[in-house]
Amino acid sequence: MGPYPAVADVRRAVRLSLADLTAGDLVLVACSGGADSLALAAGVAFAAPRAGLRAGLLTVDHGLQEGSARQAAAVAGLPLGLDPVEVLTVSVGTCGGPENAARQARYAALSEAAGRLGAAAVLLGHTRDDQAETVLLRLSRGSGTRSLAGMPATSGIYRRPLLELGRATTVAACAALGLTPWEDPHNLDGRYTRVRVRRRLLPALEEELGPGVAEALARTATLCRDDADALDAWAEEAYARADLSDSALSDIPEVVLAVPELEGLPAAVRRRVLRRAAVAAGAPPGALSAAHIMRVDCLITGWKGQRRIELPGGIGAVRRYGTLILAVTR
Amino acid sequence: MGPYPAVADVRRAVRLSLADLTAGDLVLVACSGGADSLALAAGVAFAAPRAGLRAGLLTVDHGLQEGSARQAAAVAGLPLGLDPVEVLTVSVGTCGGPENAARQARYAALSEAAGRLGAAAVLLGHTRDDQAETVLLRLSRGSGTRSLAGMPATSGIYRRPLLELGRATTVAACAALGLTPWEDPHNLDGRYTRVRVRRRLLPALEEELGPGVAEALARTATLCRDDADALDAWAEEAYARADLSDSALSDIPEVVLAVPELEGLPAAVRRRVLRRAAVAAGAPPGALSAAHIMRVDCLITGWKGQRRIELPGGIGAVRRYGTLILAVTR
Repeated sequence: MGPYPAVADVRRAVRLSLADLTAGDLVLVACSGGADSLALAAGVAFAAPRAGLRAGLLTVDHGLQEGSARQAAAVAGLPLGLDPVEVLTVSVGTCGGPENAARQARYAALSEAAGRLGAAAVLLGHTRDDQAETVLLRLSRGSGTRSLAGMPATSGIYRRPLLELGRATTVAACAALGLTPWEDPHNLDGRYTRVRVRRRLLPALEEELGPGVAEALARTATLCRDDADALDAWAEEAYARADLSDSALSDIPEVVLAVPELEGLPAAVRRRVLRRAAVAAGAPPGALSAAHIMRVDCLITGWKGQRRIELPGGIGAVRRYGTLILAVTR
Repeated sequence: MGPYPAVADVRRAVRLSLADLTAGDLVLVACSGGADSLALAAGVAFAAPRAGLRAGLLTVDHGLQEGSARQAAAVAGLPLGLDPVEVLTVSVGTCGGPENAARQARYAALSEAAGRLGAAAVLLGHTRDDQAETVLLRLSRGSGTRSLAGMPATSGIYRRPLLELGRATTVAACAALGLTPWEDPHNLDGRYTRVRVRRRLLPALEEELGPGVAEALARTATLCRDDADALDAWAEEAYARADLSDSALSDIPEVVLAVPELEGLPAAVRRRVLRRAAVAAGAPPGALSAAHIMRVDCLITGWKGQRRIELPGGIGAVRRYGTLILAVTR
């Protein structure tokens, strides 16, 4: 008799995700003790040795809740057969809101541990439901295809083997294996936007639009990722063709683009080129809005002798003699 | 003293939308009597003559509700100063659900009237809120960038001048002008998906994610439209480069593509080329799923001597000697 279907699904997803690694490589599971990362850890403990890989576990103590050290120690003590096992204690700042600060501290600690232990990959337990939540959260910011692409299956050393499985599968896998997932009290705290998305919005969407909304959102993410990748590749090529900058002439980053090269591009590509140019000239990416880029675009497509367009970071964009120049103005 | 701000906003949006038309052209407003199309009709009655245009009104009697003929006659009788004014009586089938059938009957009647009256444009009252609803509805289908692009501002003879204004603006404009919008009872009927999206989902999104969700969804639509346009243009070019079909050789539509040309394309572009090829070979577009295209894509990117891939409409895709052939198999 084979394993319970949910257990088999998790193991298969882990095996596929690790298929390109080399025998002897170390993979580390980032495990909070919740159902997703617990099922992942169990799946890795099963599949990694069979692929000739070593597998360890990292758990992060954010120090944000009463008893967090005890909870981290409990996860570290689970008899999963993973080695090495480490508790990473982090101190969470407040920059960008509590969820953001905790995430940044967590990834910094995971990356540090991966480097120190020489790991080939760090595995994260995000599921299709997390992906759906991410898409919904980003949708509400109105920031386009790249943003709707959600979380990638692979990003640097990080991998998300469970991104195509639903949360119900990880819960069922834990139950079948006799593992009791930890319920993070933060997951019930309505002050967190993601918690509200999970507990109120996605159920409301399923109720009004019919079942399968989470799958549809995750599918949207995949399609948008491919679209954004293709457009970024096009923009990179178009940028190189339009670029007249001569970095030997100046210490100050100054970007000079040929207007005729830009005029023939589709709007979506041209705006991506202009965003790259503004960033290359020194504008901070996070502060550059779509509205800024639209105003620079008007120097190309709606040229009627406009003056300099001011961008964040003290960068100015001007059009002169068939070129677009982006540079520090002060 | 100028007009009330909402009235001015509607008039400005109408003026911009009609700016490319020629003096003497006829524009027709499709008006149900609801706040959106009523505000639009009033805006057109003001702005069209000032742009040298003639402006008329069409209202559709779907015959689906008690008293619909009376309601249509009331709209036709509004003293807006539009001429010609016509009530278009349609019979609504049941194909594709009640909303779909009503929409198809409506657009058929509007197109017929526009042709008969020699109109240069038919103006529709869709607002930013309608756009947000459309994006949300399509999102739940998980069908990607083109689908998320929502309704275009211009499509053939149809124009949507109010697509960047909120519904609150049309309601305020009607109030300021002393016009009483008709409340379509269908807009309260929870059996319609769009009604549930409007009355339950969008308010829930605003509540959980903060205000501005409708604007964000509409902005997403605009960005996705530009992205989809750019990728379609790329796919068209790539298709032409890869196309080896010789229509002189056969009466049967058969598409032959050069595999090496397809291999170098980004996934998003290659899949668009394959979809075009399948449609050109005779597969019905509506029946072609992303999963079908993925299987054909495997003949390019995961080639290991697979057999024929069967597509809707009796079309088969095979790979032979470095070409991909799509043709009727029976």
